[in-house]
Parts: sequence; structure tokens; C-alpha cells
Amino acid sequence: MARINDHYLKLAAGYLFPEITRRVDTFGAANPGAELIKLGIGDVVLPLPESVREAMHAAVDELGTEAGFKGYGPYEGYAFLREAIAEHDFAARGVQISPDEIFVSDGSKCDSANIQEIFSQDATLAVADPVYPVYVDTNVMAGRTGGADAQGRYERVVYLPCLEQNDFAPELPSEPVDLVYLCSPNNPTGTVSDRESLTAWVDWARANAAVLLFDAAYELFITESHLPHSIYEIPGARECAIEFRSFSKSAGFTGVRCGYVVIPAELTGTDATGNPVSLRDLWARRHATKFNGASYPVQRGAAAVYTALGQREVHANASYYLRNAAQIRDGLSNLGFTTFGGVNAPYVWVKTPPGVGSWEFFDQLIERAHVVSTPGAGFGACGEGYVRLSAFGKEEQIQTAVERIRKTFG
Amino acid sequence: MARINDHYLKLAAGYLFPEITRRVDTFGAANPGAELIKLGIGDVVLPLPESVREAMHAAVDELGTEAGFKGYGPYEGYAFLREAIAEHDFAARGVQISPDEIFVSDGSKCDSANIQEIFSQDATLAVADPVYPVYVDTNVMAGRTGGADAQGRYERVVYLPCLEQNDFAPELPSEPVDLVYLCSPNNPTGTVSDRESLTAWVDWARANAAVLLFDAAYELFITESHLPHSIYEIPGARECAIEFRSFSKSAGFTGVRCGYVVIPAELTGTDATGNPVSLRDLWARRHATKFNGASYPVQRGAAAVYTALGQREVHANASYYLRNAAQIRDGLSNLGFTTFGGVNAPYVWVKTPPGVGSWEFFDQLIERAHVVSTPGAGFGACGEGYVRLSAFGKEEQIQTAVERIRKTFG
Repeated sequence: MARINDHYLKLAAGYLFPEITRRVDTFGAANPGAELIKLGIGDVVLPLPESVREAMHAAVDELGTEAGFKGYGPYEGYAFLREAIAEHDFAARGVQISPDEIFVSDGSKCDSANIQEIFSQDATLAVADPVYPVYVDTNVMAGRTGGADAQGRYERVVYLPCLEQNDFAPELPSEPVDLVYLCSPNNPTGTVSDRESLTAWVDWARANAAVLLFDAAYELFITESHLPHSIYEIPGARECAIEFRSFSKSAGFTGVRCGYVVIPAELTGTDATGNPVSLRDLWARRHATKFNGASYPVQRGAAAVYTALGQREVHANASYYLRNAAQIRDGLSNLGFTTFGGVNAPYVWVKTPPGVGSWEFFDQLIERAHVVSTPGAGFGACGEGYVRLSAFGKEEQIQTAVERIRKTFG
Repeated sequence: MARINDHYLKLAAGYLFPEITRRVDTFGAANPGAELIKLGIGDVVLPLPESVREAMHAAVDELGTEAGFKGYGPYEGYAFLREAIAEHDFAARGVQISPDEIFVSDGSKCDSANIQEIFSQDATLAVADPVYPVYVDTNVMAGRTGGADAQGRYERVVYLPCLEQNDFAPELPSEPVDLVYLCSPNNPTGTVSDRESLTAWVDWARANAAVLLFDAAYELFITESHLPHSIYEIPGARECAIEFRSFSKSAGFTGVRCGYVVIPAELTGTDATGNPVSLRDLWARRHATKFNGASYPVQRGAAAVYTALGQREVHANASYYLRNAAQIRDGLSNLGFTTFGGVNAPYVWVKTPPGVGSWEFFDQLIERAHVVSTPGAGFGACGEGYVRLSAFGKEEQIQTAVERIRKTFG
């Protein structure tokens, strides 16, 4: 009988978000009258920007004409979008990225999930703890780890604790690893890496011939001007880093689906005989074989983000969510909670009350305040003792949520 | 230094279609005046149907409203689309498929590329020869094969020759294999499996506990009423088959991107200890971890295919392409070429002139008739001696192409 991929059976629990959905559904079924405010899954709520809609409408109309119809697009994305990205996301910040180092996809989750496929089965990895579960789970599924312990930590994965005492900044690994997943602004802690910290990472990666997998999906939420928006603002990063970007949170694309990955031309890994191999070429091959390009109207919508109107709209949306983050942060701090993040990121990382575990606090928040959070432990052992509150909600919902928490826990 | 996935280096040549693009570009650069007619990559040309455009416009507008905005959708696709699929593609033909056995994606290429991930690294596979390269290449990249021989055949893959003498129908494997990729109507040969042949496959798969990976992307082009459209029309298929479907060729979605896969609830593989494991559950886990749902406006567009207008439009388009196929088939037959397919499929499989190899004939067709075909050898060793001509072109182009071939080769 056809044997399955047994590595899937190592996965410690259901993927975090379906598990949250399950608990929310259970609560909802038992409490049909309760109006839950969902600050769990980090999903945007503001309408799709006008610039994006106009561009998508035009693209759909174009596909309806004899002359304008387009079938298969370039696997790596249309030039119009890759050129706009290179210009606005990189050149505008003094970073030289060529359009042919950019690969457009149907979303950053897919990219950060798939990137491990171009590396050896023996590649070792390090992740922050807590961490976005996709980085780890996809490596578990690919067989790069052993089983999970009671805390959900997998054998052969190097965990870099992010704790209050190190300002939630992962420290450089003390043992050699091939791949390091970094995320800044960080999901889930809402903290952000500064230039000094990223420089240390780039220097370490070059000295150790490691590859940094840098997830910058929340880059638009950076408010402090001294902070880097791209790993490529750090000298030497082109030789050691892959960067992931997304339109999901910046432009309301969580349901529309578009992201991209940057792989610089000079970035290499080594084959079994020690020869350098271009990672960009490997990814191009993967993209061409397992993917067929992002939807054309979606790519047109994404390109519209870089117009003057588009930029005004996405920055206005980011400001809106950051005001929400400030409400949560300040509201909970005033109640005596210890909070982190929420200044350069749409997430607030909240310490649970003494002696209360993170799934327990998650359940309390649902049952007593009808607020859905994300339990920190779902992001890793070091997330125990925290919950993540997302600022992706309507302003009035955020106010109500904070008010309900005040009434129940104040 | 980070070690790469060395299996990628086994890939015999560039993925077929980029190689064709390269040759076409080279010819175009050297012959700027030549007007090439592209019947190579099987890409649709008719405008996106009105029903689809209307639905996509409405969905984009909906996303622009406070009340209608939608973020992350269900990983497996929206219920409105899965229910429409279950009703129209299956129940209407007397086949019971539940919406929760259907997983919507951004295209059938991705699904047929990714499905191997849920199976063991040791799983053995059989493919038809010639074959859609994605089935094989993705297994090469995953490490399930050895290296390629001079003909491009990989060690540890069982090839099932499809030749004139067996009517291009793959014969049952004489050795045990876990996975068999089948495609009907067939890409590239344009032939189709009848009920008897599929019944033999299902019986064989059940007797040998193998899984059939049945690609029905061209199902809409079946014209002869006695032919099955789905593997699930065959008794017992629910216990041994996964089916892939696509909106690409039926509704002009090659650039819009939508497909789906059906995995029946009772279909299982076995884990290392011999216990049965639901393949649907494994795929659900993969989908949730490495994918984030298909674009919402695209899913609305796909659902519109099942409206009365949508059905009229896609059937009219299919008829148009099938008339093209008849033109190619009859035109080339009249010139003395031996042709196959093109009756229940949008591809015509043309025997090259005696002593002329398929890449050589491909080059001759470009250079002398300015017609782009696909060399049969690109699909496998048994494709040598053939080229595939695609019926996905404008009627007048097809006429011109046939006329040019008549002038040069007649």
C-alpha cells in the first residue's frame, strides 16, 4: 500500500490557527449570543484600497478583450510588478535589487513554506522561539527534524529564545546551522530588529556560510526612522540573505494573495561536491516546476500599491492599525499588564497574569471578555506566559475589546 | 555552507517549456520580421468569459466595502465554490463527491506538483511515456528517483510506454508501484481513456494498494458521450484515486489561476507501522501549512463557470478549440502526416517525417513554417518521433499555420 510521508505524523499539534478556529467554533456553538472580537489570527479588516480595486477591474476587463487577453504569465511575475517593487521597495531606500532577483508569488506564507525545498535534507535550521509556526512545520514535514518533546520542540532544530531579558531578540547560534529564519518586525512579539542587530546577523551568517531567511512581511508598520526596512540595507546581506515580502498586511491582500521573495544573484549554497550553486537559479527552477505564476489581475492590483494613490492608501491603513496597536498597548499597560511590541508592528505581546498559562489565558479571554487572542505557547515554548493581540481590527472593536478586558481583568 | 537540494541537479534539462521559450526567443531575435504562430505551450487565447468577469468585478467591489471585505479564506476554498463543483462536475454525472473532499487551489499544475509531498520518500511511481513533465520533475526534486539516462529517463521511475501500437494507452505496470500518474484526456497525445481502460486501472490499483493520481484537466473537451469524465465514474475509484481538475483550459484561467483536487474520505495510505492514514487529512494539513487559499475574486470567477451563462460560454470556447483541433488533424492528415488525438482533447499528436527527430522537426516547423510546436521528446523517450500541436489558437491562426505547413511540407 502507498506509504505516506511519516514526517507529517511528527507534527506536534494541529497547525496553530486551525486549532484556534476549532476552539472559537466550540465556544460559539455553546454561546450563540456572544459577540466575539477576533484579535487572534492576524487578519486585516479594512476594505481593499481603491487603487487596487481600480487596477484589478481594469485587468479583468483587459482579459475580456481579444487584444488584451493574457494566458500564462511569467513564472517569476510580470516585469511591470517586479520593476515597481525594485524601484519603490528597494531603490527608494538606497538598496539595489534587480527585478530579476524578485519572484512574485501567491503569498508570503507559501514562499516561506516552500523555500526550504531548495536546501538539502541534511540542512540544519535555527528559529526564534516564539516563532511563526510555518517555518518549523514545513521543515518537520520535509523530514529535517526529529520528533517533538513535551513542549513541542523538535529534535535537530536550534531554538533561539526570545525573552523579556534579551528584549525578544534572538541571539546568534552557538552551534553551526545552515538556515536561520528571522522575522522583523516580528510575528508574534511585535518587536523589531535594529541595524546593529541585523549587522551582527549578517556578519555571523557570512562568517558561518549560513543563509538568513528574512521575513519582512510587516515592514510597512515600521515607524521609527532609524530602523532598517530590508535586510539588504545591511552591507554583505546580498551574499547571505533571502527576503520575503507580502502585500497581505500592507494592502489588505490576505484574501487576494500576493507576495514576493528576493534572492540576490550572488547568493549561493553548495552541492555535494562543494561547488557553489546559485540559490536564485534553484528557486527559479522550483518556481517554474511547481508554480504557474500569480493571478494576472492580482499582480495588477499589487502594482497599483506603488502609485501615489496606492501609497497614500496603504500608509493610511498602516497608521490606522498602528493606532489600534497603541490602544491595546496603552489600555492593557494601564491595567497593569506588561506589554511589548505594537510600536513598529501590528502585534502586542502581552504577559499573562502570574501563574496563568497562555492557552489558559486564551480561554479566559474568550470566555470572560469574548476576545480571541493567540496563545503565545502556540508559537513555541518561550511563548508560554504570553498571548498575542492583533491590532488588525476595527477601531471601535479594539476599544470594546480593551474595555471588556478592563472590566474583567482590571 | 548551506547545502542545496542536490536532487535538483539530476533534472535532465531545463523544464520543457522554458527551453521552448528560449529557442523561440533565439529565433525571434535572429528573424525580427517573422510572425510566429505559437501552437507550442498549450495556452488559451479566447477572452475571459463574461460570466467570470462579472463575478470577479462584483467580488472586487465587495472587497472594497466595510461589510463585504474578506481576508483569509478557508484554506480548502470557499463553500460556495466547492458546493458548485460537487453539484455540477460530479453529482450531475451521477458521482457523489462531498464538498469536503474538494480542495481549491491556484491551479492544477501546483496540485499535481505538490501531491507527492504527502507520500513517503520511498514511494515508487509509474508514469506514462510521454508524460507532462511536472509529474516526474517534482518527484526528481523530492529525491524519489535516481539520475537520468541519455534518453532522460530516471532511475527508479517505471515508464509505461504509450505508442501507436497500444493506441497510446499506458499498460498496467508489471511490477509493484505505489503511485501512478494518469492523464485523460491526455496531454500530450490527445488520446482519451475509455471506461474499460479506467476500470482496469481501478481494479489494478485496488488489488495492488496503489494510488492513482488522475489528471482530468482537459475533461471539458470530451465529445464522445460514452467516455467517462471523472475517474469516480468507475466503481471502486473512491478507494484508490485522487483527481485533479482545472479551470485553466475550460474557462480561460491560465493567467487567472484556479484548480482543485478531489481526495475521497475513504482513501488511505499507510504509515511506517502499517496503520491506514487518511490522505485527505494529510492533504488538508499540507494545504493549511504551505498554502493560504486561492484568491477570493478568482474563486468567485470560478464559481460563475457553473451558472447557465458560464456553462454556455465555456462549452462554446471548448467547441471553438475542438474545431481548431479538427482543422489541424484533418489538414495534416491530408498532407500525409499521421496524426492522433484532437477529437476529445485540444492536442494533436503528429508523427514526424521518417528519419526526422522531434526536436529537429520542432526546429524545422519554426524555421520553415514559423509555427511553434512542442517536441514529443520533451515529454519523454516515447515521445521521440512526434510533435504536439495545440489547438489553443485563434481560428485564423490555425488556418494559416496549417496552410504554411502545407506549403513547406506538402
